[in-house]
Amino acid sequence: MNFVTFKATAQSDNVRWGVEKGEEILEIFDPISEYPDLLSFIRAGKPALELLNEKVKNGSITTRYEKSEVKVLAPYAPPKNIFCIGKNYADHVLEMAKDQAVALPKFPVIFTKPYTAIIGQGEEIQSYPELTQQLDYEGELVVIIGKEGKNISAAEAFDYVFGYSILNDVTARDLQQQHVQFFKGKSLDSFAPFGPRIVHRSAIENPHQLQIKTLVNGEVRQNGTTSDMIFSIPALIEVISRGMTLEPGDLIATGTPSGVGNGFNPPKFIKAGDTVSIEVSDIGTLENPVV
Amino acid sequence: MNFVTFKATAQSDNVRWGVEKGEEILEIFDPISEYPDLLSFIRAGKPALELLNEKVKNGSITTRYEKSEVKVLAPYAPPKNIFCIGKNYADHVLEMAKDQAVALPKFPVIFTKPYTAIIGQGEEIQSYPELTQQLDYEGELVVIIGKEGKNISAAEAFDYVFGYSILNDVTARDLQQQHVQFFKGKSLDSFAPFGPRIVHRSAIENPHQLQIKTLVNGEVRQNGTTSDMIFSIPALIEVISRGMTLEPGDLIATGTPSGVGNGFNPPKFIKAGDTVSIEVSDIGTLENPVV
Repeated sequence: MNFVTFKATAQSDNVRWGVEKGEEILEIFDPISEYPDLLSFIRAGKPALELLNEKVKNGSITTRYEKSEVKVLAPYAPPKNIFCIGKNYADHVLEMAKDQAVALPKFPVIFTKPYTAIIGQGEEIQSYPELTQQLDYEGELVVIIGKEGKNISAAEAFDYVFGYSILNDVTARDLQQQHVQFFKGKSLDSFAPFGPRIVHRSAIENPHQLQIKTLVNGEVRQNGTTSDMIFSIPALIEVISRGMTLEPGDLIATGTPSGVGNGFNPPKFIKAGDTVSIEVSDIGTLENPVV
Repeated sequence: MNFVTFKATAQSDNVRWGVEKGEEILEIFDPISEYPDLLSFIRAGKPALELLNEKVKNGSITTRYEKSEVKVLAPYAPPKNIFCIGKNYADHVLEMAKDQAVALPKFPVIFTKPYTAIIGQGEEIQSYPELTQQLDYEGELVVIIGKEGKNISAAEAFDYVFGYSILNDVTARDLQQQHVQFFKGKSLDSFAPFGPRIVHRSAIENPHQLQIKTLVNGEVRQNGTTSDMIFSIPALIEVISRGMTLEPGDLIATGTPSGVGNGFNPPKFIKAGDTVSIEVSDIGTLENPVV
């Protein structure tokens, strides 16, 4: 099942959410109306999901929109900053090190981005020319946590996954470097395009066999596979949840493969007028213009 | 005015908030009841504050508790992860570098802690002996943002400050180092003791003339002054808000002076059975046992 948050273009300003079915979006309502948004639905866990499955199957959801009638929005704002993993693909670690000797990380490198950075499908990435001359993209698979847990073992980690989506870990490389810790250069408003949909984990056979492709103005820049992650999704959940409570709706952006702008010689940074598209197989395409 | 979040020990489990007046706590209620918690009150801005001031002055708040009748809690959970500043006191930068050459930061070092790390006055800091052998304290002044803003200049920064409190930036030094980025070693559950009160900015003459003293089992370990910050509060607000929206309730922990456990030779880490007290002049004492 694929979940989307949207507005109906012809109607009021209400933010709605629903599930995709063919070329339609089914709007979720009674008896699921206790879940005004996708986050509260994710928080409600398995019983809500089962009820929704039933309603979708038996055709009792009668408010439907053609996809052309809606504007898709970012799925939701998570309860904590987005957990982001740096240096989780070997080729990306090497490209960032340029010609210097470098070791692969022995422990996941974890930083965060605040929800104020989130934008949705088609919304504009701000280029902040007054703040950065090194604006970069990072196409990533993002994991949506579905269940509260702490000290989760890798073996049981997938039980805590609600689904998957796409995140562009937009980065101002110069700010990232100046401030030493990654946070500032990763966290400007609009630096976390997220979406366009959340795919339930049951619909993805193997999240470590997904292709991640990033295109800038149609030119392929990143073309990797999630099979190349240094720390797998279960390993990341195990490490992040050690001593730290994960909650439904938490987002873990799992790192980016090689091919970021900074990895080229000379670098290929993005600028106003560009369009960045991230395609992840089984999920879709997240596309955002840069202004 | 001093704000506290609390439970009345003799009554139900309801979390209440109020203002301190002498040895009493005045519980805030009608007509302020549209603010069920301190965060919603902070979000309501100046009109709510003026109304409250009036009510406190004219004695129309009639629900009062002796301080001995309440258990003080952490003030609230912020809308984003806590913004934390590393290396903001020169002496602390030097002690952390041990004997190695080191430069003072030219740009603030910014990382975050999630709200799940927050505990209140008297609550237990978990020592996680299975995860860390280098548990450390960091006494800090924390700034509470009171108004939404972006690209705030240093000159107008104090207009965006609601008040001040105390934060213990508890840190597992070994995790901090292993994971390269600070986040993981700073973010375990209970690693952000916060409180015991928020002091409105109008009650603090100069936030850069406050003494910060940290004691472990009564032994003074840190004894610094906020006048020694490398980046002042207005400078921090200016830099953090560049391209990034700050919101009412956001917390900025302004860094720690020298005297952390890791700065001693041999290091003086904390362990189960210890008690950490942080005294900040004009604010009070935040005390937490380690278990």
